[in-house]
Amino acid sequence: MEVDLNHLWLIVSACFVFFMQAGFVCYEVGFIQSKNVISVAIENILTFIITTLVFSFLGFALMFGPGPWGLFGGHYWLLNNLAQAHNSLGFVFVFFELMFAGTAVTIVSGSMSERTRLLPLLLAAVILAGFIYPLFGHWVWGDLFLNQPAWLKNLGFMDFAGATVVHATAGWVSLAGIIVVGPRKDKWDEEGKIKKLGRSNIPFAALGTFILWFSWFGFNGGSLLEFNDRIGLILLNTNFSAAAGVVGAILTTRFFIRDHSYMEAIFAGALGGLVAITASSNYLEPLAAVMVGFISGSVVVLAGLLLEKLGLDDAVGAVPIHGFGGAAGTILLAFFASPQFLGGQSRLLKFFVQLLGVTVNFVWSFGLGLLMFYLIKKRFGLRVTEEEEEKGLNIVEFGDIYSWQEYLKITHYENLT
Amino acid sequence: MEVDLNHLWLIVSACFVFFMQAGFVCYEVGFIQSKNVISVAIENILTFIITTLVFSFLGFALMFGPGPWGLFGGHYWLLNNLAQAHNSLGFVFVFFELMFAGTAVTIVSGSMSERTRLLPLLLAAVILAGFIYPLFGHWVWGDLFLNQPAWLKNLGFMDFAGATVVHATAGWVSLAGIIVVGPRKDKWDEEGKIKKLGRSNIPFAALGTFILWFSWFGFNGGSLLEFNDRIGLILLNTNFSAAAGVVGAILTTRFFIRDHSYMEAIFAGALGGLVAITASSNYLEPLAAVMVGFISGSVVVLAGLLLEKLGLDDAVGAVPIHGFGGAAGTILLAFFASPQFLGGQSRLLKFFVQLLGVTVNFVWSFGLGLLMFYLIKKRFGLRVTEEEEEKGLNIVEFGDIYSWQEYLKITHYENLT
Amino acid sequence: MEVDLNHLWLIVSACFVFFMQAGFVCYEVGFIQSKNVISVAIENILTFIITTLVFSFLGFALMFGPGPWGLFGGHYWLLNNLAQAHNSLGFVFVFFELMFAGTAVTIVSGSMSERTRLLPLLLAAVILAGFIYPLFGHWVWGDLFLNQPAWLKNLGFMDFAGATVVHATAGWVSLAGIIVVGPRKDKWDEEGKIKKLGRSNIPFAALGTFILWFSWFGFNGGSLLEFNDRIGLILLNTNFSAAAGVVGAILTTRFFIRDHSYMEAIFAGALGGLVAITASSNYLEPLAAVMVGFISGSVVVLAGLLLEKLGLDDAVGAVPIHGFGGAAGTILLAFFASPQFLGGQSRLLKFFVQLLGVTVNFVWSFGLGLLMFYLIKKRFGLRVTEEEEEKGLNIVEFGDIYSWQEYLKITHYENLT
Repeated sequence: MEVDLNHLWLIVSACFVFFMQAGFVCYEVGFIQSKNVISVAIENILTFIITTLVFSFLGFALMFGPGPWGLFGGHYWLLNNLAQAHNSLGFVFVFFELMFAGTAVTIVSGSMSERTRLLPLLLAAVILAGFIYPLFGHWVWGDLFLNQPAWLKNLGFMDFAGATVVHATAGWVSLAGIIVVGPRKDKWDEEGKIKKLGRSNIPFAALGTFILWFSWFGFNGGSLLEFNDRIGLILLNTNFSAAAGVVGAILTTRFFIRDHSYMEAIFAGALGGLVAITASSNYLEPLAAVMVGFISGSVVVLAGLLLEKLGLDDAVGAVPIHGFGGAAGTILLAFFASPQFLGGQSRLLKFFVQLLGVTVNFVWSFGLGLLMFYLIKKRFGLRVTEEEEEKGLNIVEFGDIYSWQEYLKITHYENLT
Repeated sequence: MEVDLNHLWLIVSACFVFFMQAGFVCYEVGFIQSKNVISVAIENILTFIITTLVFSFLGFALMFGPGPWGLFGGHYWLLNNLAQAHNSLGFVFVFFELMFAGTAVTIVSGSMSERTRLLPLLLAAVILAGFIYPLFGHWVWGDLFLNQPAWLKNLGFMDFAGATVVHATAGWVSLAGIIVVGPRKDKWDEEGKIKKLGRSNIPFAALGTFILWFSWFGFNGGSLLEFNDRIGLILLNTNFSAAAGVVGAILTTRFFIRDHSYMEAIFAGALGGLVAITASSNYLEPLAAVMVGFISGSVVVLAGLLLEKLGLDDAVGAVPIHGFGGAAGTILLAFFASPQFLGGQSRLLKFFVQLLGVTVNFVWSFGLGLLMFYLIKKRFGLRVTEEEEEKGLNIVEFGDIYSWQEYLKITHYENLT
Repeated sequence: MEVDLNHLWLIVSACFVFFMQAGFVCYEVGFIQSKNVISVAIENILTFIITTLVFSFLGFALMFGPGPWGLFGGHYWLLNNLAQAHNSLGFVFVFFELMFAGTAVTIVSGSMSERTRLLPLLLAAVILAGFIYPLFGHWVWGDLFLNQPAWLKNLGFMDFAGATVVHATAGWVSLAGIIVVGPRKDKWDEEGKIKKLGRSNIPFAALGTFILWFSWFGFNGGSLLEFNDRIGLILLNTNFSAAAGVVGAILTTRFFIRDHSYMEAIFAGALGGLVAITASSNYLEPLAAVMVGFISGSVVVLAGLLLEKLGLDDAVGAVPIHGFGGAAGTILLAFFASPQFLGGQSRLLKFFVQLLGVTVNFVWSFGLGLLMFYLIKKRFGLRVTEEEEEKGLNIVEFGDIYSWQEYLKITHYENLT
């Protein structure tokens, strides 16, 4: 195998996408309560461990192996037979795709954090990395490794870098999760008024946001699967959408939501813009990318409001950002993509095709998510006790109180003043 | 357009330079008071949002578009006409330059933090990204995209990666800003003795320093605008200067400043060395890079002392590091650059040319900075009230107290002990 | 010199490896007590400063210059004569190797932190970067730059990316250091029961872990010294070993150590897996990488237990992770490497050769480490006073109390509630 610029770009991109794990740790830790930060940080390590083993040895075959009617793959179980595969990227492609799966899986645990037990979350990660994510992925991207049909792709469904395949899948599974596990006990006070919880370390979340943004250049840029002259525009579009997402989110908050904090809107807008542009960054002119970001930033803020009205509690905003942001970006593609990328379909037809793909994705991810969390809840229990939730999962899960006391950083304060 | 190694290197470098945003968040948050960290973190996100939109759609044309007499560019407004530009880098170049503009803009808000209102800072970011930075940039780098004159460059002024164009510009605008907004209320006590404020999280600042250092490899390396055999030496020189900057800063502190903390010197020396070498990393032998770093590290420490004597209050040291460090590095180039890079000018002539460029940069950036902040102050007000400053901008700007309480991490402490 | 894909990959890898410095700051700060975090963070900056100057100008020549019998190099002192060297990588190679030296040096100070004085640690860094590390390195990697013998390599000793050369060297010097300096005063209580100290910020350590993991892709990938079709598998193997390391560490903790915290096992397992695979990532099939990681994860946990039984106190686990993990990985190579990489030696012979290399490395690093720290202790003193240790090195070393108070983040809390 001759390696070239394409392999190098894919490797670098994959490393950037891996780095999303660091970004999610910072972001999630920043947005939850101090008493649960150790728990969430370690959860993020464990879910990536699981994805590494489960996706590489099972999920990859299901997603990219040869299979009938574009429904599911096989053959590459345990990465066997792979070196001989008829694809010039070989293990480089596996490495790249592993990082995408890692992103999808890590999102779910964040939204359910602060009240969900560790082991059920890890079990859900196994199912997500080994079945829910790769199977849907096969329907859209099943042709990326071998030249074979992928049924949604064949209908004309377009999702460049995974706004639907990666982000919305994770978002809808999260939605199922927060429904089944229920809201955090203090989320609404006795009079039904919503309380703001968490946000233990906003500067850490800001660091996480910039790490994620950085990683997104690999996410979108690498999805070319080669290094070509589209790259500059793709990365610029990524920035435009993030920036316009913030503007859209701030204006929506300003005009529609009186007492909301702009802080949340800024973070949600940036990430929502990044998620949305993931569907179409390769198909847009700059000003179209601004529009996609702007609208998606608004959608994310309104979706957050909707969740609250429905009494749903997403600790880190994963459902609005990844679910609604991903779906919005995928559908907006039909209206904003440059004509030459529509593959001969009219905008109206493309809209319906995109809507179909988004709907199939929702039914699959949310449906299986509900079933999965319901069965886990019934069989193993999903939620910590009320006392444990009060105490915080730092202590409950990791059985020692030292780290948490240190984290409080009070030691010796009296001696100093 | 055929893409090659040069495009790939520029893209990777640009991603590294983007990551400076994360570095500045950590560094600035680490060096200010806890009560303002949320405010500063979010400010950093917002200024990059602004730079993305304003520089890409306006500033880029002004800086790199075709224009008369090397004075200002045009033509590429809203990135129109760009794909047809006679430059093989196309949008890759825009993406790269956007990240440089982002660096310049983010520096200013840090130095004025802890007492400046958010909206005036954002307005200043618009003017900096859309006018002050790109116009001066045109005078030095206006020929990088199109083959056209750039008046300072044509005189022989050399600034390889932007010690003056990026860093000193930002430093002098910062200087104007801290003069107009005035020092933080607690910076000097009743007896006129200086107080050390801030430094909420030095480990976070150390992380920020390493992130910035990492990003600098893209800053200096990418500025080749191609991938060639100078790259190894450029990146080594970057390290040498940073290391020698620390040594210079420590020794200067040791011999000139009795009661100063070495801690500040270490950070300022490393960053000062990095800023200084930005001017000349491509033109030096290793030991010359050590000298440039050593001298610049001293200059930065002495400049910090000078500011304090003048009663000026720079919350994160941006003026000494980026202003004085950038100017020092630019001028030292005349003495330390290997002869073959002097373009036929004698060292003395080169010294005067460099001095001229640095002076023009100072007059332009500091002058327009003063005017800008004066007008903003007069029209909109620039500073929070004394009460608000006392309270901290975390609460004042983002209207909710929860995050800040969580950040204090006291919750439940009593229950644990 | 014509640059190509190989140079670009090496530069990018080197930048990733540099980023380990950021990872170690986060990891070490996260695992120690709050009262020492500023000290440790700044120590990390200073040791890299030292490595930059000492390794580049002295160590590199010793490690890679021409020299007799594969014992030591020379000739490139102060990087002289280097441009003319008969190696197509030139300064790119120096930059890459500097980052490896930086990794080795930074590890030592972490394990001895919280009770060791700053200046002795910096002196040790000079000796490590200028002598201990590069000389052993010459014996294994002395042929990488010039085509010349390296005595251990010539015997068939294999260490792909430095599990022994970099990590075990640092681990055994650390072991010497913690023996000579002694345990932290509070590590065992009056009844001889071990106390858990530190862990000021586990989320920060989790960020550090992901940063290190990211950097490891450059560590292992770059060690090819070219960009070829092994790259995908190498990086996958890196992941497999880290993941299996966690599984091994958790199971070992579960079955062998009743009252241990899983938290420690998770971090130690991931890093131990990464260290171990460093020896052999290029020579393994995926499932073999899983085995190497799994066994090494167990070894690291058991080694940690052993240290505690011996009364040794390693503040950040450097000895189990880098020393034992590195040795384990190097030896396991003999059993798990694919046959074609064994260079014609039988597995048994390869085992003895690997054991010999590991032993030589131990004798050299631990022996010189003991001597070095013993002499430093005798001549300059190695340890802070008991009072200073109680007070914390933040205050003791950096002479001001402000930063530390701010870090405690108590300011104004009373006004808020």
